Amino acid sequence: MLENLKVGILGGGQLGAMIMRQAIDLGLRVSIMDKDAHAPCSHYTADFFCGDPASFEAVMEFGKDLDVITIEKEAVNINALRQLEKQGVKIFPAPDTIEVIQDKFTQKQFLLSHHIPVVPGEAIQGKNDLYRYENKLPVCLKKRRDGYDGYGVMVLKTKEDMAAAFDAPCVVEELVDIKHEISVIVARNEHGAVACYDPVMMVFSEEKFILDYQIAPAQIGEEMSEKATALARKIADALKLVGILAVEMFVTKDNRLLVNELAPRPHNSGHHTIEASITSQYEQLLRAVLGLPLGAPGLRFPSLMMNILESATLSTDKPGKLKRLLDIPGAHLHWYGKEGSRPGRKIGHVTVTDNTIENVIAKAESIRKILN
Amino acid sequence: MLENLKVGILGGGQLGAMIMRQAIDLGLRVSIMDKDAHAPCSHYTADFFCGDPASFEAVMEFGKDLDVITIEKEAVNINALRQLEKQGVKIFPAPDTIEVIQDKFTQKQFLLSHHIPVVPGEAIQGKNDLYRYENKLPVCLKKRRDGYDGYGVMVLKTKEDMAAAFDAPCVVEELVDIKHEISVIVARNEHGAVACYDPVMMVFSEEKFILDYQIAPAQIGEEMSEKATALARKIADALKLVGILAVEMFVTKDNRLLVNELAPRPHNSGHHTIEASITSQYEQLLRAVLGLPLGAPGLRFPSLMMNILESATLSTDKPGKLKRLLDIPGAHLHWYGKEGSRPGRKIGHVTVTDNTIENVIAKAESIRKILN
Repeated sequence: MLENLKVGILGGGQLGAMIMRQAIDLGLRVSIMDKDAHAPCSHYTADFFCGDPASFEAVMEFGKDLDVITIEKEAVNINALRQLEKQGVKIFPAPDTIEVIQDKFTQKQFLLSHHIPVVPGEAIQGKNDLYRYENKLPVCLKKRRDGYDGYGVMVLKTKEDMAAAFDAPCVVEELVDIKHEISVIVARNEHGAVACYDPVMMVFSEEKFILDYQIAPAQIGEEMSEKATALARKIADALKLVGILAVEMFVTKDNRLLVNELAPRPHNSGHHTIEASITSQYEQLLRAVLGLPLGAPGLRFPSLMMNILESATLSTDKPGKLKRLLDIPGAHLHWYGKEGSRPGRKIGHVTVTDNTIENVIAKAESIRKILN
Repeated sequence: MLENLKVGILGGGQLGAMIMRQAIDLGLRVSIMDKDAHAPCSHYTADFFCGDPASFEAVMEFGKDLDVITIEKEAVNINALRQLEKQGVKIFPAPDTIEVIQDKFTQKQFLLSHHIPVVPGEAIQGKNDLYRYENKLPVCLKKRRDGYDGYGVMVLKTKEDMAAAFDAPCVVEELVDIKHEISVIVARNEHGAVACYDPVMMVFSEEKFILDYQIAPAQIGEEMSEKATALARKIADALKLVGILAVEMFVTKDNRLLVNELAPRPHNSGHHTIEASITSQYEQLLRAVLGLPLGAPGLRFPSLMMNILESATLSTDKPGKLKRLLDIPGAHLHWYGKEGSRPGRKIGHVTVTDNTIENVIAKAESIRKILN
C-alpha cells in the first residue's frame, strides 16, 4: 500500500512543503534532500537530508533505498538519476525530460523540433558574444542553466546593460510584443493519461515583481484557452512526461501563442489549485509519479494568487499585517516560514477565492493595501 | 513571526497529521508526542517524540521549551499541563476545559449546570452497581474516561449483556429515541470571538459502523440547525474555550435537541471541512490557539465524509480498490498510512464534494460498492 512506498523529493523549499501537505493525505513516507539544512521541508518530514541535489554523490546516497524520486527544482544531478534508474529506482519525470528542460536552449530546440512555436532565441557562450546584438537591442538575456524566479534573466536595452550582462552560456531572445502572459499546468502518467488545468494569467502591477497577481481562469477567451491547453498536452506527450509540467506562454499582440519556458515540476502558477481546483497540482504530481489515476483538474471557482515578497515595508509590523490578511474571508495564506529572508525573496503567497473574478480582484486589492 | 513559534501537539494520529498539513500552510514548527513510535505523525515532523501524553513526566519533558501546546486526543496529563502553564507555556484548550470533558460524567454535570439539555445519565463505580438498572434495560453504558471511536461504549439490552459489561467507572445513559445524530464544530479564541460550522448529520448503513456517511449540511431544517449552532456557541462560551470543540447531539423523535458528547479537539465530524469549507477545522484550531483571527467557517458546497475501516473484504485488492476510488472526480482520499491495522480500525476517509447532496450521495454509493 501507499505507506510502504519510499518516496523521495529532490529540493526542500516551499514547493516541496506543498507536496508534503498532499503526501500526508496519501499516508506516504517521504524523504527530502536540500542543500540548506533549514529549508522549509526540514521541519515537515522525519527523513530530511542535507545535501546538494546537484551533487552526484549526494543524490546517489539519498536515492539508493527509495522506490520513486521526483523533483521540486530542475537543478539536479542527471547522471546520478540515470544511475539510480538503472538500479531500479523510478525517476519521474525521467532524467531525459529533466535534462532537456534544465537547459533553456536545448529546451527551445526540443520544442522547435516538435513544431511548437517558441520565443525566438539564440545561444551564446558568454558576454563576449553579445557584440552581435548591439544593433538588435533590446533583447532578453537568460542563463541557459539554473535560472529561477527571475534570477538569471535580464533585459538588455543599452550598451551599458551589455557591459553588466551575465558572463555565462546564455540564450538571447527577441523581446516579443506581449499581450498576455499565461501558464498551463499539465500532468501525464506512465499510461499516457493526460490531465490539463485551465490557463492562468499573470497580471502585473506598475512596480513589476511586487505582489503581482495570477488569475484563474485566464481572461483570454475560450479559443485561446483551448489553443493553450492543446499546446501543453502536445508538449507533455512529446516529452513522454511522467509527472507535471508548467508551460509558460506569451499571447502576443498579434494573437500568436509562443512558449516561453517549461518547468517539469510544481510551479508558482499552480499554487491556486490547492484551494480552487478539484485536484491540486501537488496531489496531481503524486498521483502521476505513483501510477495512480490522475485527478480531475477542473477549477471550482475563480481565484487569484499573489506572491508575498520580503520587503522593508512588509517588515514594518509583519504580524499585524498578516493578522489583517487572515481576517479576510476566502484569503488563504501560505506562509513559507523561511529563516533570514533577504528583500525580494518569496516568503509566502495568498490565494483568494470567491464567486466572481471581480470579487476576487477586489479582495486582492484590499490585501495589497494591507501588505504594502 | 509564525516560524518562530514552537507549537506542540499531544497525540500523533491522523488528526495530528491533518493539523500538520495546515501547519505547513502557516510555516509553523511543530513538535508532536505520541506513545506509538510509528504513529502517522512520526513521519511528518522533524520533532516527533515517542512518549505517553497521559504521563506527567513525558508531558513535562515534551512541553518545557514550547510556546503553545494543543491536543488531538483528550487522554492527556492535566497536572503536567497545569504545571507547564505556570511556567509560561500557553495551553489551549485550557487544562480546566480538557479536564471537564475528559470525564463523561463531569462533562454532563457541567453542561447541566449551564442549563444545556443532555442525554440523561447517572454515574456508577463499576459492574456491581449495574443491578440498579435491571428493570430499566436497555441502557447505554459508557466508560467515564478514555473512550473514543466507539471503544468504551456498549448498549446493554439483557441481563447477559450486563454480565459482560465494563467493570470500570461508567455513565449509564437512557437510550433516547433518536431521529438524527448531528455534530457541530465550534471555534473560539482568547478574545472571545466564536466561529461556528454548520451541523453535519450522520447517516448509518444497515450494518452500523461500516462505511457510514456524514453529510454536510445536515438535512434537519433551518430552525433545528440554528438551534444546534446556538447551543454549540453557548457551550464554547461556558467552557471559555480557546481552540475547537465538537458538539455531538441527538435530535430526538419528539424534536428535542440533546447533547451527547463533547470533544475539545479536531473531530471526525469535521473532516469534510478540509475540502468543503472556506476554513478547515484544522486551520481553525491553529488560528484559535495562535491568537490569529478565526477563519470563515462557511460551507462552499455539499459534501459527504465516509470513514474507511480495515476489513478482510477491503484487504482483498486494496490497491486496486483505492485506484478505482481515486478515479472518481471529487472523491478526496485521506489515507492514514497506519502500520499493522486490525479489523475495524479507521485507516482512512474519503470526502466527496459536488454541487448537490443528491450527486454527493450517488458518488458515495459508488465508493461504498468499490470499497466493499
